[in-house]
Amino acid sequence: MVAAANLTWQEFADRVERVVILPVGSFEQHGPHLPLGTDSVIATKLAERVGKELDALVLPTLAYGYRSAPYSGGGSTFPGTLDLRLNTLTVLIQDILTELVADGCTKVLILNAHYENTAAIMEAMYLVGERFPSQVSLVTTAWWDCVDAEVLSDVFDDGPFPGWELEHAALTETSLMMHLDPESVHEDALPGDEGFHAPNYIRIPLKPGDIPAHGGLASARGASAAKGQRIADAAVDGVAQLCRKEWGLDVGH
Amino acid sequence: MVAAANLTWQEFADRVERVVILPVGSFEQHGPHLPLGTDSVIATKLAERVGKELDALVLPTLAYGYRSAPYSGGGSTFPGTLDLRLNTLTVLIQDILTELVADGCTKVLILNAHYENTAAIMEAMYLVGERFPSQVSLVTTAWWDCVDAEVLSDVFDDGPFPGWELEHAALTETSLMMHLDPESVHEDALPGDEGFHAPNYIRIPLKPGDIPAHGGLASARGASAAKGQRIADAAVDGVAQLCRKEWGLDVGH
Amino acid sequence: MVAAANLTWQEFADRVERVVILPVGSFEQHGPHLPLGTDSVIATKLAERVGKELDALVLPTLAYGYRSAPYSGGGSTFPGTLDLRLNTLTVLIQDILTELVADGCTKVLILNAHYENTAAIMEAMYLVGERFPSQVSLVTTAWWDCVDAEVLSDVFDDGPFPGWELEHAALTETSLMMHLDPESVHEDALPGDEGFHAPNYIRIPLKPGDIPAHGGLASARGASAAKGQRIADAAVDGVAQLCRKEWGLDVGH
Amino acid sequence: MVAAANLTWQEFADRVERVVILPVGSFEQHGPHLPLGTDSVIATKLAERVGKELDALVLPTLAYGYRSAPYSGGGSTFPGTLDLRLNTLTVLIQDILTELVADGCTKVLILNAHYENTAAIMEAMYLVGERFPSQVSLVTTAWWDCVDAEVLSDVFDDGPFPGWELEHAALTETSLMMHLDPESVHEDALPGDEGFHAPNYIRIPLKPGDIPAHGGLASARGASAAKGQRIADAAVDGVAQLCRKEWGLDVGH
Amino acid sequence: MVAAANLTWQEFADRVERVVILPVGSFEQHGPHLPLGTDSVIATKLAERVGKELDALVLPTLAYGYRSAPYSGGGSTFPGTLDLRLNTLTVLIQDILTELVADGCTKVLILNAHYENTAAIMEAMYLVGERFPSQVSLVTTAWWDCVDAEVLSDVFDDGPFPGWELEHAALTETSLMMHLDPESVHEDALPGDEGFHAPNYIRIPLKPGDIPAHGGLASARGASAAKGQRIADAAVDGVAQLCRKEWGLDVGH
Amino acid sequence: MVAAANLTWQEFADRVERVVILPVGSFEQHGPHLPLGTDSVIATKLAERVGKELDALVLPTLAYGYRSAPYSGGGSTFPGTLDLRLNTLTVLIQDILTELVADGCTKVLILNAHYENTAAIMEAMYLVGERFPSQVSLVTTAWWDCVDAEVLSDVFDDGPFPGWELEHAALTETSLMMHLDPESVHEDALPGDEGFHAPNYIRIPLKPGDIPAHGGLASARGASAAKGQRIADAAVDGVAQLCRKEWGLDVGH
Repeated sequence: MVAAANLTWQEFADRVERVVILPVGSFEQHGPHLPLGTDSVIATKLAERVGKELDALVLPTLAYGYRSAPYSGGGSTFPGTLDLRLNTLTVLIQDILTELVADGCTKVLILNAHYENTAAIMEAMYLVGERFPSQVSLVTTAWWDCVDAEVLSDVFDDGPFPGWELEHAALTETSLMMHLDPESVHEDALPGDEGFHAPNYIRIPLKPGDIPAHGGLASARGASAAKGQRIADAAVDGVAQLCRKEWGLDVGH
Repeated sequence: MVAAANLTWQEFADRVERVVILPVGSFEQHGPHLPLGTDSVIATKLAERVGKELDALVLPTLAYGYRSAPYSGGGSTFPGTLDLRLNTLTVLIQDILTELVADGCTKVLILNAHYENTAAIMEAMYLVGERFPSQVSLVTTAWWDCVDAEVLSDVFDDGPFPGWELEHAALTETSLMMHLDPESVHEDALPGDEGFHAPNYIRIPLKPGDIPAHGGLASARGASAAKGQRIADAAVDGVAQLCRKEWGLDVGH
Repeated sequence: MVAAANLTWQEFADRVERVVILPVGSFEQHGPHLPLGTDSVIATKLAERVGKELDALVLPTLAYGYRSAPYSGGGSTFPGTLDLRLNTLTVLIQDILTELVADGCTKVLILNAHYENTAAIMEAMYLVGERFPSQVSLVTTAWWDCVDAEVLSDVFDDGPFPGWELEHAALTETSLMMHLDPESVHEDALPGDEGFHAPNYIRIPLKPGDIPAHGGLASARGASAAKGQRIADAAVDGVAQLCRKEWGLDVGH
Repeated sequence: MVAAANLTWQEFADRVERVVILPVGSFEQHGPHLPLGTDSVIATKLAERVGKELDALVLPTLAYGYRSAPYSGGGSTFPGTLDLRLNTLTVLIQDILTELVADGCTKVLILNAHYENTAAIMEAMYLVGERFPSQVSLVTTAWWDCVDAEVLSDVFDDGPFPGWELEHAALTETSLMMHLDPESVHEDALPGDEGFHAPNYIRIPLKPGDIPAHGGLASARGASAAKGQRIADAAVDGVAQLCRKEWGLDVGH
Repeated sequence: MVAAANLTWQEFADRVERVVILPVGSFEQHGPHLPLGTDSVIATKLAERVGKELDALVLPTLAYGYRSAPYSGGGSTFPGTLDLRLNTLTVLIQDILTELVADGCTKVLILNAHYENTAAIMEAMYLVGERFPSQVSLVTTAWWDCVDAEVLSDVFDDGPFPGWELEHAALTETSLMMHLDPESVHEDALPGDEGFHAPNYIRIPLKPGDIPAHGGLASARGASAAKGQRIADAAVDGVAQLCRKEWGLDVGH
Repeated sequence: MVAAANLTWQEFADRVERVVILPVGSFEQHGPHLPLGTDSVIATKLAERVGKELDALVLPTLAYGYRSAPYSGGGSTFPGTLDLRLNTLTVLIQDILTELVADGCTKVLILNAHYENTAAIMEAMYLVGERFPSQVSLVTTAWWDCVDAEVLSDVFDDGPFPGWELEHAALTETSLMMHLDPESVHEDALPGDEGFHAPNYIRIPLKPGDIPAHGGLASARGASAAKGQRIADAAVDGVAQLCRKEWGLDVGH
């Protein structure tokens, strides 16, 4: 793995045929026990591990993401959440992808760790793909899309998997943070199951009580560094695997 | 239910305290058996029925939606799919909501029938909600979010529910169209189960074979007008119910 | 005529060499006697008839148009008028045209029924024409531009033609609606001649009295379904004629 | 009349209660006999004369306008025409109006001399009027809207008035330039009547022969400085008159 | 020198191989002694002189510029300053450059006289250069970048040169205006040295006292028409020289 | 100093009255000896030290900046430089500032380490300041603006200071990196003085030889960690000092 920001331009120029990874996180409330930078930490650390597997270039993480949605992030009413507008994140990613194409990069992976970023990532990929239809191969995935059912079933050993949308500041993210950045986790503040069920609609403005007061959407109880490692390994392996398949890479086995 | 477009401006002015429904569809390939306007037909017809329940004003349907995504709509490579850019749909909805606020409307429901529209709808709601924080209550839902598990289990009587994303041009949409607009369905062309599984990533450009050649993502076999009616009834009831709850309405029981 | 929304994508793909018609209307006050959707009804119905003449594909009508101007639509102060910003309508049309080009369509007619839409339609055509200079032929006209002097003189048998700008919710539009959608016309509420003359300037903000209180700009008295049919026939014939000439079509004679 | 650009900021601050005039022109082909800056010259000179009548502040003329349209300006295929996009002119005017409001100006006249500018001027006025609903009175007119029928009939003493759209580089503009800026007129190159009739539709791309080769749309024969003076006097008087009426001014009689 | 606005389109078409100069000014407070149009006057007059040297086409000056910054123009708190937003000036210049390319012009000089315009000019040049990578040569400079140290040392014969940023409405601009447009200078109001030193940071909002009350940032004492001529000569010579070098011109020696 | 990303939302909410620092860097070629992330490293490390002085919250660094300019960064022709468009960086910063205001933060410092970012930072500050005129105090500076003449003269002990624009990848930045991130510096590749003098104009497209081939603009010879420490200390002290003055802080003395 190569931190692209640590290269000189000549070293970068010598490596443009490698996979380039753009991690995308957020600056968003993650309950009473996880830091605002949770998604960015996860995006960064997993990208670094995938990068190691693939000898890839890892770009600086986008540390601000698209607006937190009520039932996948708690919404924008929590202080500390610093949200971008949809078009802002779109043009930001569009510009970076455009510059990568101009520099001769041909294999770009956008690794997402914030659910709400998806639409902006897709739109940026479409816009760049339309402009350079045959010059670049763009791929996006999210770490949770690369964690298979077996792992999930092991991790949720004490209750059902609530679905990825509600897994905000909950068991999987908390475990990941215990593994990836343990000092940032307030283990004494892990929210339990409040039996929160997301309604089948979204309203603006939000009202008090729409979201559990602490900001978590599902239980984080039972989280552990070991589970975090299990998830991280699965995600890293899954992402690396799809890159190898997509680009016929012969590295890191 | 009142088709708002059929009112004179004075009749409209007399009804601004009612719920206003904006249906949002798409113009998108729906396999070999359903028309390009499928989502718009569903959005329109269900909105009309909800409107009837609630004595609501139903606005003209947005008949063009956000870009079709590969694994929830087949992507933009199929001729006939006419996609809007993300920001275009956002500002379109933003303008309509802004004008409704200016006209004195206070209860607006955006009823979505195209999966990919979600982000643009949310962004428009945020932008308008920020500008008029106390003048309007904005609500959005999708018909599938209002169909409960029991109905789903009845409808999928011959195989597992593949998840809403893959339910593109598949059992539920086909059944709905057989119920709502039977003449537009090519019953002899219903795609069966090709065992398509969406990969855990998206690539741009798409390549041949990424999507089943006919454009459907899951089986439509077993679709029927009766199932369509079941789904429509559940969706209409669910949407009407949430509006009654949200706005304390006392209509249509 | 083919309602494009009723086609499957394969049927659409088989017909891309045909003329494609995009009708553009508005959601705008039309006096005490005509519905808010008047322009969209007219755009839709005339497009369908032109489509029948030319075996053309007719797209879903754009049911929201550019801002109503004071002296051609009464302005935005009437409740019920739902106006788009200029750039919103521009990018909406631009996206649809761009997608038509991507799908292989080469002959596109934008049929306008709302005076104020003209600039946005033109700008969208320019933007798409610049991007695809040799791939598509784009044509726009409005129904009134295809009604000749003889018809006008017959229709205005009891007073002078006030000019197309003031013909908002007046004799021609009212007649057209009596012919095309008679149930939506409040015949007992037809405004007479208030002797309104548009001033030679426009002011923002508008003030009470700038526009006749009912929203019409000229007399609708004398309107009849027969006159509506005369106008519709002339417009349809005129539009079809120009398409035949422009694209060397050999259909519908 | 005060050329605002010649004032110091303190002198400007002392005069914010006066009418402020923003002339808007274009940089557009005007046939074989008139210069590219024709519209800007007319906008500037007439604004100066109106300014003199009203003791108004006259701002620097916007010398680049919205895209020339085929049948009111010849279109963008003539070298020398430097066109702005629709949104560019809109935001340019929007910014200037916003700044005038911020500076305390309350009476602003936008004097237009290029037909195609109308939509951008209106949109800018709407946007600023919505943001500052009670702080400023915005008015727009064009010189031709202030020339009455009697003047027209005198000026067109040798043939019918072809309508303002076709009066591009024709009798009225040529006469105005002979009066306002005689040295810039090539009197030996005045185009005669080619019997050009604008078709009832617009196509993109334009084709050879759509526009008379020299760029004029109607005859300029018979143009004279005397007629130009007649038109200029009428326009100036008309514009000044409407300002006096609009703002209750008691100046310049 | 040719004022491009005075040409017919055919004359323009015959001269597209010449250098085209776009002068960019501002409408900005310039202390108690200089007019709001100071930068535009300087841009225009110097461009005309450079144009004369090079037989170049001189376009109409952009008379409104990017926002005045506190420590190079006094900021936007002075009445009379009419500022454009950054993106507005960018797209305005982008459009003009794009049209010049479309017209076949290949050598374009953007001559800047307002410090804050730099970023918008550069961005516009980049955007146009990316779109037409081999069709046009774009050059920008500012008059002060072409005045060499020797001239500066002669001009500042009674005190040190305070740096170009602070030279707002100060010795050099005042001298230039005394030479170029003497009647617009209030010689009795020249601000002296208030010992103003720009802080090493900028704050928004500005507070009273951040800028000297009269709007000048450095002393204008000692300004003279003779010094203005010296500066103008140096600037014109410098600009003409770089154009000759850049484009291998063989004119005006 | 508090890394804001390490806080929970509640901890953030408890600290909104503190100074918030947004460091802004770039991803830009920095010669043969410094990494692409140089500006971001400097912005981050100095912000952390200022944050420590002031007990401030330090936000994640913006790691991508505005386009590299030829004579202050080498321009965009070097592989590895990943530039944002001007409006992209503007809206990115605008969104973050807007969210900070919404969260109740009142003292925001934008600390810049990439020369070309200045205009976008200013524009974002203006836009947010206009929207929230009395809710927030926004301040921006660059590290070099806080290094005084005495330090500069000590650091340039073997040759003249070439000016901040040319100090790209040169003596000061190299020294800073030797001090702040020594492992990333290729000390054997320090460029010497090529006698490069920036021309007095900028051309697009750039041509070979416009910039020294290695990407540095001035000599880095003589750089040392000790000088870097001197510069860092001065910058940190200067920035902290202006914050104390601006906001009347009583911390860190």
